Amino acid sequence: MAEIKKMIGALEKLDARNMYNNDFLLTWEKSDDEIAAVFQVADILRKMREDNISPKIFKSGLGISLFRDNSTRTRFSYASACNLLGLEVQDFEEGKSQIAHGETVRETANMISFMADVIGIRDDMYIGKGNAFMREFAQYVQEGFDEGILEQRPTLVNLQCDIDHPTQSMADMLHIIHHFGGVENLKGKKIAMTWAYSPSYGKPLSVPQGVIGLMSRFGMEVALAHPQGYDLMAETEEVAKKNAAASGGKFTKSHSMQEAFKDADIVYPKSWAPFAAMEKRTNLYGDGDHDGIKALEKELLAQNAGHKDWECTEDMMKLSKNGSALYMHCLPADISGVSCKEGEVAASVFDRYRVPLYKEAGFKPYIIAAMIFLSKTKRPEKVLSEILKKDRKRWTK
Amino acid sequence: MAEIKKMIGALEKLDARNMYNNDFLLTWEKSDDEIAAVFQVADILRKMREDNISPKIFKSGLGISLFRDNSTRTRFSYASACNLLGLEVQDFEEGKSQIAHGETVRETANMISFMADVIGIRDDMYIGKGNAFMREFAQYVQEGFDEGILEQRPTLVNLQCDIDHPTQSMADMLHIIHHFGGVENLKGKKIAMTWAYSPSYGKPLSVPQGVIGLMSRFGMEVALAHPQGYDLMAETEEVAKKNAAASGGKFTKSHSMQEAFKDADIVYPKSWAPFAAMEKRTNLYGDGDHDGIKALEKELLAQNAGHKDWECTEDMMKLSKNGSALYMHCLPADISGVSCKEGEVAASVFDRYRVPLYKEAGFKPYIIAAMIFLSKTKRPEKVLSEILKKDRKRWTK
Amino acid sequence: MAEIKKMIGALEKLDARNMYNNDFLLTWEKSDDEIAAVFQVADILRKMREDNISPKIFKSGLGISLFRDNSTRTRFSYASACNLLGLEVQDFEEGKSQIAHGETVRETANMISFMADVIGIRDDMYIGKGNAFMREFAQYVQEGFDEGILEQRPTLVNLQCDIDHPTQSMADMLHIIHHFGGVENLKGKKIAMTWAYSPSYGKPLSVPQGVIGLMSRFGMEVALAHPQGYDLMAETEEVAKKNAAASGGKFTKSHSMQEAFKDADIVYPKSWAPFAAMEKRTNLYGDGDHDGIKALEKELLAQNAGHKDWECTEDMMKLSKNGSALYMHCLPADISGVSCKEGEVAASVFDRYRVPLYKEAGFKPYIIAAMIFLSKTKRPEKVLSEILKKDRKRWTK
Repeated sequence: MAEIKKMIGALEKLDARNMYNNDFLLTWEKSDDEIAAVFQVADILRKMREDNISPKIFKSGLGISLFRDNSTRTRFSYASACNLLGLEVQDFEEGKSQIAHGETVRETANMISFMADVIGIRDDMYIGKGNAFMREFAQYVQEGFDEGILEQRPTLVNLQCDIDHPTQSMADMLHIIHHFGGVENLKGKKIAMTWAYSPSYGKPLSVPQGVIGLMSRFGMEVALAHPQGYDLMAETEEVAKKNAAASGGKFTKSHSMQEAFKDADIVYPKSWAPFAAMEKRTNLYGDGDHDGIKALEKELLAQNAGHKDWECTEDMMKLSKNGSALYMHCLPADISGVSCKEGEVAASVFDRYRVPLYKEAGFKPYIIAAMIFLSKTKRPEKVLSEILKKDRKRWTK
Repeated sequence: MAEIKKMIGALEKLDARNMYNNDFLLTWEKSDDEIAAVFQVADILRKMREDNISPKIFKSGLGISLFRDNSTRTRFSYASACNLLGLEVQDFEEGKSQIAHGETVRETANMISFMADVIGIRDDMYIGKGNAFMREFAQYVQEGFDEGILEQRPTLVNLQCDIDHPTQSMADMLHIIHHFGGVENLKGKKIAMTWAYSPSYGKPLSVPQGVIGLMSRFGMEVALAHPQGYDLMAETEEVAKKNAAASGGKFTKSHSMQEAFKDADIVYPKSWAPFAAMEKRTNLYGDGDHDGIKALEKELLAQNAGHKDWECTEDMMKLSKNGSALYMHCLPADISGVSCKEGEVAASVFDRYRVPLYKEAGFKPYIIAAMIFLSKTKRPEKVLSEILKKDRKRWTK
Repeated sequence: MAEIKKMIGALEKLDARNMYNNDFLLTWEKSDDEIAAVFQVADILRKMREDNISPKIFKSGLGISLFRDNSTRTRFSYASACNLLGLEVQDFEEGKSQIAHGETVRETANMISFMADVIGIRDDMYIGKGNAFMREFAQYVQEGFDEGILEQRPTLVNLQCDIDHPTQSMADMLHIIHHFGGVENLKGKKIAMTWAYSPSYGKPLSVPQGVIGLMSRFGMEVALAHPQGYDLMAETEEVAKKNAAASGGKFTKSHSMQEAFKDADIVYPKSWAPFAAMEKRTNLYGDGDHDGIKALEKELLAQNAGHKDWECTEDMMKLSKNGSALYMHCLPADISGVSCKEGEVAASVFDRYRVPLYKEAGFKPYIIAAMIFLSKTKRPEKVLSEILKKDRKRWTK
């Protein structure tokens, strides 16, 4: 109890007022205080659950999920977060084509929101589409609220788009904070966000983009590395540059995995598709050019195959600080000799980091719950204090 | 609070005792008091939610949904209503053929009802089947309860059948009541329930049937209009006639959209399939005659195409009372130039009424919740008073 | 209340401490006291629900369902049980191939369990696989808990595997106990667990195996009968033999339905596939030998067809004790002339026992709830007493 009180005290010093009734779409739209508040509330909710205190703030209400791509871990993280706070998850299963038009999005946004408190959206398939869809959706529910159609304005949580994957990068970051014993210990640490070989193609860019966009805010050196031609969206690199400058850190780019891994405290080797290729694919899909898509797929796989040496091997790990950098991944990883013949990471490396990797993933439900909590309580520290005082047991053991 | 107290006072004067432990299958099986009670409870629940009061009457329990047709808005309305009252939605996904036989229906009805408080059924595909299925289902759960198999008797809510669509027509009606400032202001008002052109075919008849069956109870003039050959089920027209006579209103029929729209206070232009054709289709499906079905489809589309002038245009709207009738639709509408080339309504008309249309849809969750509430509380006014007194917050803001 | 108090008193005398934080995978892994405790808690929870007392022990939490085979009644039973105790069901829909590898199971087990209190698994398709999968899964969540990945250790409930179907056999047994007015009246009673003809093939063996493995514990004579070649797993017969010896009962085997039915107090005629054939099928699936599978299917259907006389007819029933044995089935049954031309049971027999059969099924939600309750409360009798004292209404009528 004393520990949680102290944590609430720390939260009180942060200005997160603007998060109330607000969406969470990109980490770089949020202030440092707001980002810190999410971490703080996530830790508080986690500690409360460990202490068997229920932090329910809803007696009823729906948490809508709108997934335009399959997902197990994000789906369960979102469901866990909603459930923890008292919201029932209701999946919105759209036919792929069904909400293509602007007018249909507007109508759907209102029709599913009459009693919705939160809407979690995952739309990461097409470059230029996912985040735009979320903003369109947010605009329509805002209008619906302003026009008196919706009794409450549901808040949106970006569960992965074409630009950012905030619930992932925030969970990753909270893992880093805990690993290094506090955000104050991160200044000068080096994190290598590097491409890695995968036998599949078309993996989303939102993870590396989200990582460089967020991790650059804490005074760390963010070393991005990928083979020639695997560029990320330029705007996210701009974000990283600005963040690094502002936080007293560094943002570097190279085409060498070795260079990025050298003396790194943290390594995050992960496959992704080249931005330009994804843009091309989006256009091919738009044109319904199936032959073009197949040709592109073949081309991309061949391109990938030219970079099989981008693997997080034991030798590569030895380059890192004291040979013992924190290895990270958003999971599932392509593990050489386990889930594929040749992949992103050697089996022995992955195995050594399995427990921390699973813990990393375990932060996600709390990050999502914290985002919801901060968008749904005007004075989160006050509500949390009351929850602590009431001490309602989550589970009568 | 004072306002809600007054609303509960009004509810107290209505005799809705027979709704307790009873199903809601057709509006015309319900007394005027019962219909009024549904509207009253819907308004009370809505006001409570706006005032952040949780009207939960269940600590646990299941609200089963059995949808034999896809649906987004009805599904979400039902889920919202169940959730508001404390029931968890559990979807029953039957294989299409699975509950064809009587014996299988009997067994299924019991097997899914051991802890079910409410069962919402949508079965609108085949003429002569949907409502009959609901009654069969209701009979089996009644028997199950009588025989000591089921601990409670789940109540059924008709979420659309071949005959009526009570949650739709009741939501529509509540919209009208609010728009005209009270049910007492409706005497003599004219509502035009008309067919409209759509490029698709086989749209259910339950909406127009439900509308003429319900709207004829309030002393209004209900003007039904459709092209030759687009008749509704005769029994629903009989209901409308009797209702109109009893309520001091009028029920008229014509084959002219203009005539119906003339001086109308409310217009409800909406496509549907001819009853006779739907009967034929049901038989073709029964016989497994796929060529016959295809031929019928072609025929119906051609028949529709002969009536493209049945569109709710600006010129048509000008015919209505002061050129400003309340335009209504159950959504989604076929909007000319937006969702199709030529459709039920001109884009400019639809756009002008978008906000009221969405509000109209917004009544549905509360109508469903009210139906459930009245079937699950013996003295609803007493329970509502207690809820008001306890003043439990739905959402700790 | 007095009745429930008495039931709690009886529970207090049983030692079920080892069930806390423990899985329920096979009935024969549980002590007699533990089995008795499940029956007792099931009856208490049932009586509480009848008396409108909510036995919720969770304010939030997930009950994951992992079904590798379609199911209606088990799915609804599990959902009902979770809901009754306060857990929200979250379905884990795996692609069939997705969790094939050991490493993938390990990762999935952790990823879906961050906030999972219970995981119900049904995996009955392949001999040698289902129970093994559950144990693997259980091991991984235990490791996840030990390693600090999981905040709580979700407990597993076997909702049917290749070896046992404990929630079925326990529900069946509770039905028998109630029918005969108490477990103390079962000594010397005869139950016939017999094969019966079905026009389908490949029905799981877990029901008969579960029945002989459980019913042999109560001093009854368990008479297993099936045609030549329809053997069960040898290990489950060993269990039955040992149980019968320990409980002062009998376990007999024959190839005659008549012999088994003779003077039986209870008959359970039900189709299943030969163990050896199921083993063969598992291997054929493993080899991807589709022609082999088709050939096996044909062979099995022909083999079945040689035993159409294994039907529970009126004449067969006359052989039973006073011609009025309790007829049992796990449902759905293959009813001759109703669900198939020739099947497991004559329509008139089934019809006469319909009500008891449905009641038999009605015990399952409470059995599952009791298993969860006992694995989630350290002192179940104390928690139940508190629930009784608090007397929170499940439903505000």
